[in-house]
Amino acid sequence: MIAAIIGGGVIGGGWAARFLLMGWDVRVFDPDPEAERKIVEVIDNARRSMPGLYDAALPVEGALRFCETLSDTVAGADWIQESVPERLELKRKVYQQVQAHCSPDTVLASSTSGFKPSDLQSCATRPDQIVVAHPFNPVYLLPLVELVTVGANSDIAVRAKAHLKAVGMFPLVLEAEIDAHVADRLLEAVWREALWLVKDGVATTEEIDEAIRMGFGLRWAQMGLFETYRIAGGEAGMRHFLAQFGPALKWPWTKLMDVPDLDDALIDRIAAQSDAQSGHLSIRALERQRDENLVAILRGLRRRNAGAGGWLAQHEATLAGAPSLGDVTRPILTARRAIPLDWTDYNGHMNEARYLEVFAAATDRFMEMIGCDAAYIAAGHSYFTAETHIRHLGECHAGDVVEVRTTCLSGDGKKMHLFHDLVRQGDCIATGEHMLIHVSLETRKSCPPISPVTETLKDVAKAHAALDRPDGAGRFVGQGR
Amino acid sequence: MIAAIIGGGVIGGGWAARFLLMGWDVRVFDPDPEAERKIVEVIDNARRSMPGLYDAALPVEGALRFCETLSDTVAGADWIQESVPERLELKRKVYQQVQAHCSPDTVLASSTSGFKPSDLQSCATRPDQIVVAHPFNPVYLLPLVELVTVGANSDIAVRAKAHLKAVGMFPLVLEAEIDAHVADRLLEAVWREALWLVKDGVATTEEIDEAIRMGFGLRWAQMGLFETYRIAGGEAGMRHFLAQFGPALKWPWTKLMDVPDLDDALIDRIAAQSDAQSGHLSIRALERQRDENLVAILRGLRRRNAGAGGWLAQHEATLAGAPSLGDVTRPILTARRAIPLDWTDYNGHMNEARYLEVFAAATDRFMEMIGCDAAYIAAGHSYFTAETHIRHLGECHAGDVVEVRTTCLSGDGKKMHLFHDLVRQGDCIATGEHMLIHVSLETRKSCPPISPVTETLKDVAKAHAALDRPDGAGRFVGQGR
Repeated sequence: MIAAIIGGGVIGGGWAARFLLMGWDVRVFDPDPEAERKIVEVIDNARRSMPGLYDAALPVEGALRFCETLSDTVAGADWIQESVPERLELKRKVYQQVQAHCSPDTVLASSTSGFKPSDLQSCATRPDQIVVAHPFNPVYLLPLVELVTVGANSDIAVRAKAHLKAVGMFPLVLEAEIDAHVADRLLEAVWREALWLVKDGVATTEEIDEAIRMGFGLRWAQMGLFETYRIAGGEAGMRHFLAQFGPALKWPWTKLMDVPDLDDALIDRIAAQSDAQSGHLSIRALERQRDENLVAILRGLRRRNAGAGGWLAQHEATLAGAPSLGDVTRPILTARRAIPLDWTDYNGHMNEARYLEVFAAATDRFMEMIGCDAAYIAAGHSYFTAETHIRHLGECHAGDVVEVRTTCLSGDGKKMHLFHDLVRQGDCIATGEHMLIHVSLETRKSCPPISPVTETLKDVAKAHAALDRPDGAGRFVGQGR
Repeated sequence: MIAAIIGGGVIGGGWAARFLLMGWDVRVFDPDPEAERKIVEVIDNARRSMPGLYDAALPVEGALRFCETLSDTVAGADWIQESVPERLELKRKVYQQVQAHCSPDTVLASSTSGFKPSDLQSCATRPDQIVVAHPFNPVYLLPLVELVTVGANSDIAVRAKAHLKAVGMFPLVLEAEIDAHVADRLLEAVWREALWLVKDGVATTEEIDEAIRMGFGLRWAQMGLFETYRIAGGEAGMRHFLAQFGPALKWPWTKLMDVPDLDDALIDRIAAQSDAQSGHLSIRALERQRDENLVAILRGLRRRNAGAGGWLAQHEATLAGAPSLGDVTRPILTARRAIPLDWTDYNGHMNEARYLEVFAAATDRFMEMIGCDAAYIAAGHSYFTAETHIRHLGECHAGDVVEVRTTCLSGDGKKMHLFHDLVRQGDCIATGEHMLIHVSLETRKSCPPISPVTETLKDVAKAHAALDRPDGAGRFVGQGR
């Protein structure tokens, strides 16, 4: 698949990064001589943070090419993303040139945060090819994209949604078109209010930021406005909440009905406060902090299968494919993943507990492969780990892509004895040896497995008995080599 | 310390829970016959989610008592928190009664989301005792509290800030008083905007929630509005951002300047959409989801030492105390903590990788105790784990308070051989045996430790040589008992 990115900058670069890391080839058109440097910086940020979001490796990265002409950029593309400055006449001109060279079946999407599709479509050669796909910075980490397909033909609309999902985005499809769509309407409201607070000297930019991230920002990372307020209403429900808090709308906060004048004095004040707050950090450093925090938040939500983390988990399932033992005459591939940013510790490498996290996930995958899957577990049986031995032979770092190869040392009766090799580019970085016991989840006591787990496990153990016994198996801590 | 909670409900109950779990005794006054049940439900939610937020155990829970009279409730209290309904006359009456019975040195704080201190202080016997301390739901998880001490005497202001910090809250001290303080001004702006979007049929409550939690809600959980926009401005900075996006304020979004009428039709629509979105879950189930998500987000940020997680880490340091070996003739206490909500896996108990997370933290603590602390590591040396053996003897569950007792099996030359017992109420649930190697962080190769680590480690190893060798030491995976 090919994505054409028209207009670089932070947003265009973010789109380029997402498509590229999801395996698409990407062509970029931007006449700015600085465009290549800027886009590559964004892509580097993405390479650092995005692969480790998932518990499965991303596809092989696509090819990136900078083009000299619009026609070169869009010919044969499956997706065209326009992210040029927010000037309607400029955008309309771009579409006329693009439509002269692209297929009518290609989605032609605008990153505009303000214009409606009908604004963009008028004057176009084929208006019904144009949609709004408004993303949020950083585009390579945040799943939200507002997809407004009003006025587009249904093939384009269907294809747009499917492509966005394929690259891991959450398309919020809006049935009505309005200026600034939905999210930016909410952001604009907060922005105006925040400007008043700064202008009136009630709070500094830093205090406003703390008021958000120490409080409701945490709530909004996992539930939105209405679900949060539904809870506030208690058992009496949303209606009760509205009855209780609705009257606040009539309070005499008359300033809320006005817009502050963004004059030089206010601009000076905001710029100075922002410098005091964050001026000791470069934008690059701030971006890295932001991305590391977002990875930590998203991975936390992913484990909970909640909000944006639930969306990640769904996408991940499509990346990892169905569990399959494959060729049982060799060790089984039970994991393939990148090391996340937030797994690094004070020694500058992957923390030891994360090795067991990787091995535990590999064991889970092996269990699925032999039939001890979610349905089997829901029916009341599972394996518990009784004993583990880990050897560290090298160091893993954030971003490393690693695989786990699993040998079944025995699988008789209630026991399952596994040996994992954690491999990076052919080198074994660590091994994990694990004894698991089959249990009843009701009694929490050991018991023999049930068909077909019993037979499948025996078959794998039998096939693996022909392999060399792994070097590190059966060793104790401190044993001489 | 004693906290008096006047007015139960979700906010009063949240305050009660936070004080209680931070070791304060709590007295509650609320004439509602349902108050006790409601408050205990909130406290149960807090007991489930809050202790595991920290990597150190919370203090022993205080005593909870429901009082019949206001005078009984406030006599001798160190903090009085008023959370009665938002009616000014009612609040003023409460203060008059309270001040007849409480010490003038006690902080008398209101949870009001709308009133200014001066509103509350007028008609009071001692106006300068009254402050606003406006928290956010769930009070036991979100650190933010808006502290407005305008009109209060300086002793009260100082004490208010110190007490709030002692119970883990982040007091945002506002120097100016305005209706609705800061955070609720921002929330009110979003709320009005969201009502328009629903009323105009642009988006449903669920779509608005997704627009938040899939996008800017994730950003705001770790940076606020201004720091996020500073990044959007790029290297050109905040001034550039303002120049670029300021004009949006003048766009013809005239509706933003008006307030929608919250009539029956709009209430019906919101209630119906909210039922469609979340009606399949009870409020209790939603609360649990919210709390589990917040724990996951906060713990992610805590590892990064960022935002609310940085605040948690600071508070945790005061809970855990300074590292100290204590009596070296016995195993060393290297961890004491509650098991977090988000550590549970599909088997309904603590995931195996988290055992190593606990053991790794215990090893870190032991390293600090022998002098291999942050300064030693910053100077270029550390220990790497080479090998680990874990035995599971029982099951841990979310909320369990566990300890780690560490025996040093040897500490000669470059090696450090540790044995951890993970203990819950006297029962050993798991053991961890670890071989660590002292390294240069520059060469990444082994080397002997430096004074005083060398000597301290030898002393501990010598003292521990007199102890019985731990039962599980030196065993390999699958060895018969």
